[in-house]
Amino acid sequence: MIVVKVGGSAGIDYGAVCADLAALWEEGRRFVLVHGGSGETNRVAEALGHPPRFVTSPSGYTSRFTDRETLEIFEMVYCGKVNKGLVERFQRLGVNAVGLSGLDGRIFEGRHKDSVRAVENGKVKVLRGDHTGTVERVNVGLVTLLLDAGYLPVLNPPAVSYGGVAINVDGDRAAAALAAALGAEALLLLSNVPGLLRAFPDEASLIRQIPADDVEGYLEFAQDRMKKKVLGAAEAVRGGVGRVVLGDARAERPVSAALAGAGTVVS
Amino acid sequence: MIVVKVGGSAGIDYGAVCADLAALWEEGRRFVLVHGGSGETNRVAEALGHPPRFVTSPSGYTSRFTDRETLEIFEMVYCGKVNKGLVERFQRLGVNAVGLSGLDGRIFEGRHKDSVRAVENGKVKVLRGDHTGTVERVNVGLVTLLLDAGYLPVLNPPAVSYGGVAINVDGDRAAAALAAALGAEALLLLSNVPGLLRAFPDEASLIRQIPADDVEGYLEFAQDRMKKKVLGAAEAVRGGVGRVVLGDARAERPVSAALAGAGTVVS
Repeated sequence: MIVVKVGGSAGIDYGAVCADLAALWEEGRRFVLVHGGSGETNRVAEALGHPPRFVTSPSGYTSRFTDRETLEIFEMVYCGKVNKGLVERFQRLGVNAVGLSGLDGRIFEGRHKDSVRAVENGKVKVLRGDHTGTVERVNVGLVTLLLDAGYLPVLNPPAVSYGGVAINVDGDRAAAALAAALGAEALLLLSNVPGLLRAFPDEASLIRQIPADDVEGYLEFAQDRMKKKVLGAAEAVRGGVGRVVLGDARAERPVSAALAGAGTVVS
Repeated sequence: MIVVKVGGSAGIDYGAVCADLAALWEEGRRFVLVHGGSGETNRVAEALGHPPRFVTSPSGYTSRFTDRETLEIFEMVYCGKVNKGLVERFQRLGVNAVGLSGLDGRIFEGRHKDSVRAVENGKVKVLRGDHTGTVERVNVGLVTLLLDAGYLPVLNPPAVSYGGVAINVDGDRAAAALAAALGAEALLLLSNVPGLLRAFPDEASLIRQIPADDVEGYLEFAQDRMKKKVLGAAEAVRGGVGRVVLGDARAERPVSAALAGAGTVVS
């Protein structure tokens, strides 16, 4: 079992990801796909007159401030446009995909964080009305039910809080939690860079190997969203996942390439 | 097994529908919910600068002309905003709902109609680039798999063509096909009117009973979208569904009321 997470940034070729996955699926390999949709969410939010707002935590992590209206736009793009677009691609390729969010069947469950500490103009502020959280529990039963019946699960945030509220969660860390819960042999985190770079954005500075017991030691090289990927990688290997590959979704056969070790391999 | 379809028009109280369904679910009744989202799709399409376009067929049926951009907006609203909003409501009420479109697991399958005949300015024109169709096959296996595992399926258009293309289908007729395929004891088609009216919009002219062998004879009383409901009712009873109720989603306990016979009962 392999968990593949594909991001939602510019340059990612969903067609290539789906074609590669479909070919591997045909060979009998089994996957769960988790996807993002951040870039498209920003575009739709702008078009609807509710532009995105990103906040930076005191420890340097950037995240989307998700008020109720933003959550609904987020759901429109992630669960509607992107998820159903991927499911349609798979159906055309003859793979019977099923698209679900973390709300459905409580696949991704966590605590609702209503307020967030954010650094603005050098000061730490507390912003309320946030719909975010972190995945703490995964409904492996539903994912396995679908896989055993021959369906390819295509999953995305939001997750659901214990009280039943939709919460925006980081997709990389959700995929890491899923991979650990499924006892996956590998987790592939594919985005629009070749992997973790020692000197971002110099692609020649790619770090090829990270020992499983020192993943956090490499956090210093991670920029922006890559921080969550390194954190997710650390969580996955601690959770028993055989290896994590930070790979390039812009490659021609991006899943096969990552499986063959292209990118940054954490093991 | 009961299939409940709730429309997407103004005045419908989703909170009341979900609370009623959750209470009945708690009592051990089993349902599949199919929902619309037409009104909200129109609002979002306007806001995104791609206003809806409705066409009338030579036989007098009105439908949404669904080009590719409209299809994506449709998916954002139906599969994203409305479906996940309903799933979230159920999760808050303690019912483990799973929201899926007809694309997912090929739940609703049919032929892709790329062109539509439309009457415009008194002339019949052929419009191409349409993404519509009619449900011809239902993946009962997946719906039953979820029900048997304790999940409440919450379904919506689009469907998938045999070739794997997303197609907009009428939700009432999709619900009718589902009810027939499941061998449901009842199909409830809830909208923002009390049922079929002999003299629309006079609510006192409600037709309380329609014999199963003469449903089409009542088509003359149906206005606009009600035509599809009467057609769906005819298809469902012909398909073996015990009874169909055209009921009022604006009532306080709309599902219980329809089950108790409020509205137009076809049996």
